[in-house]
Amino acid sequence: MLSAPAVAQDRPEIHWRMATGFPASLDTLNGGAEFLARRVGALTGGRFRIAVHAADEIVPRAEVLDAVSVGTVPVGFTVGSHYSDRDPALIFDTAMPFGLNTRQRNAWMYHGGGRELMRRVFADHGVIPLPAGNTGAQMGGWFRKEIGSPQDLNGLKIRVGGMAGDILAKLGAVPQRIADDGLRQALEQGTIDAAEWGGPHDDLRLGLHKGAKYYYYPGFWEASAQVSCYVNRRAWERLAPEHRAAIESACAETNLWITAKYDTDNAAALKRLVAEGALLRPYPLDVLKAAHRATREHLEALAARDPRFGMVHASWARFRDGQRTWFRVAEHSFDRFISLVSSDGNRT
Amino acid sequence: MLSAPAVAQDRPEIHWRMATGFPASLDTLNGGAEFLARRVGALTGGRFRIAVHAADEIVPRAEVLDAVSVGTVPVGFTVGSHYSDRDPALIFDTAMPFGLNTRQRNAWMYHGGGRELMRRVFADHGVIPLPAGNTGAQMGGWFRKEIGSPQDLNGLKIRVGGMAGDILAKLGAVPQRIADDGLRQALEQGTIDAAEWGGPHDDLRLGLHKGAKYYYYPGFWEASAQVSCYVNRRAWERLAPEHRAAIESACAETNLWITAKYDTDNAAALKRLVAEGALLRPYPLDVLKAAHRATREHLEALAARDPRFGMVHASWARFRDGQRTWFRVAEHSFDRFISLVSSDGNRT
Repeated sequence: MLSAPAVAQDRPEIHWRMATGFPASLDTLNGGAEFLARRVGALTGGRFRIAVHAADEIVPRAEVLDAVSVGTVPVGFTVGSHYSDRDPALIFDTAMPFGLNTRQRNAWMYHGGGRELMRRVFADHGVIPLPAGNTGAQMGGWFRKEIGSPQDLNGLKIRVGGMAGDILAKLGAVPQRIADDGLRQALEQGTIDAAEWGGPHDDLRLGLHKGAKYYYYPGFWEASAQVSCYVNRRAWERLAPEHRAAIESACAETNLWITAKYDTDNAAALKRLVAEGALLRPYPLDVLKAAHRATREHLEALAARDPRFGMVHASWARFRDGQRTWFRVAEHSFDRFISLVSSDGNRT
Repeated sequence: MLSAPAVAQDRPEIHWRMATGFPASLDTLNGGAEFLARRVGALTGGRFRIAVHAADEIVPRAEVLDAVSVGTVPVGFTVGSHYSDRDPALIFDTAMPFGLNTRQRNAWMYHGGGRELMRRVFADHGVIPLPAGNTGAQMGGWFRKEIGSPQDLNGLKIRVGGMAGDILAKLGAVPQRIADDGLRQALEQGTIDAAEWGGPHDDLRLGLHKGAKYYYYPGFWEASAQVSCYVNRRAWERLAPEHRAAIESACAETNLWITAKYDTDNAAALKRLVAEGALLRPYPLDVLKAAHRATREHLEALAARDPRFGMVHASWARFRDGQRTWFRVAEHSFDRFISLVSSDGNRT
């Protein structure tokens, strides 16, 4: 028998191509994939190299999961929610309207059984999923006119992705799908009435404030949005244990890195957007309540129709309900006090 | 010249002893150190082994940083705040009263210059510091009697550590230092009036609810408390690059792991504490405001007296002020809505 270290010395060098679902201009999401690849290289003394290819370079951005599933590329970096039309349970790997916040999602994934459930769901696609980033709470989109009540959403053409589109459609809006780079122009020309992309840092880069001035919050459909590293199962099984560990640790490190970078950059970008004319508006409480009711109905219908979705939803909802008192008591009572004294100008 | 991979194969095996500042019964903090050691082992194919020794096993719990500093052990796992009597700037590595919350602290450490500042501060102690965990917002302690106003703190003997003791003393309380395992009895016997340790999961294990029934929140002196991995500088410099990377990635992974575990376990423990008789009480607004004023005065005095403290405080306070609008807008407006509909019983 060879000892483990002796085996480790005999590992062949590995070169992987990674396809991401994000253009290179998204320096936090695609930049996160590049950070992940650098960390895997550093952890393996350069023996495991991952070349990162941004959206559409080697795989169309909407087909990353397919490419990983069939093995065209061994690894991808994107969001599961883009693929939930074919398998609704995949959305739990990204974000749920009125769902867990970022801390709660990490708790669910790493200690609440979420990661194991996602492994079961993605096993049917021949894929190993690993959490690898989170945007934190996003904004609620750019509107050309103010929204005073749920009725004001009626007939509005809103660019928004995934399940948020289903929810807004229930409120009478008309969801649109337009690629990132066409958003500013569509808003400027009025071919759409509103558009949601992400948070201040990415929205500023897309110039969305030039097309619509009312910037709504919170992004109730993505109170946290996870990005994941998806590995082809056969490629994963061929990896040496320490190379699997390198991907696992680098993904966790990237998860932290992406959220920390967004929190740093979003704070600065929000100030700049406001300085350049963006007008911050909270969604009226009635809009949030109507969206919340619509979400409940939508999730219940999906759970009744799709047993896989129902299985994950049951675990997820139980975990979510268990978290709320704890967060309300310790975390949010502190945050509320800080908000109060900050707006008083009474600073430490 | 040898190529990097060839060099990697020649690395000697490394065995390190790690001293932690936490007893083995703290399954999340000391358990985090054990998780970190397992990950370093997994990442290096077993070539870099770290044996974890809990508080007092090989180094007294209050002397972990000293032992790392002089090289008695190459690595420790504890909090910098325990050592801030000798060097006030060390407290920025752990927690500040009314300071950054967990997300904001990670943003400051990984992308806001905090990690680099901490490296400068700890360089004077011959130590490389790495963030390796965070408790999240803690609770505000167990009181035998209710607190109705700042005056009610006058003369109260409160077990509390570090800078929180300085702040509470300014409000008239008498800070006490008692080891964890004596806390329950001291409360039961009334030799102290109140005690703070951490959050519900750890407080439940210590049985503090048996000694005092009023459980106050938030723990305004530790809205997030980081634990760190401290490496002796000469030991660090002797490590191969991929072994340094293994410690860095494993520390980041452990940082995420500890917070996720606390969030999962605290939620369950809080329910159990309430079921066993704990009475949740928010600190009165006047108490929080008085503590906030006392904190501001204390930090200003420290910054004026200690230029190192002042240097870090300037960066930290600038980052903190920059984060507040962003968190108030997106993250906290979402959390507030969820609190509202959860207490309505109107659940998704």
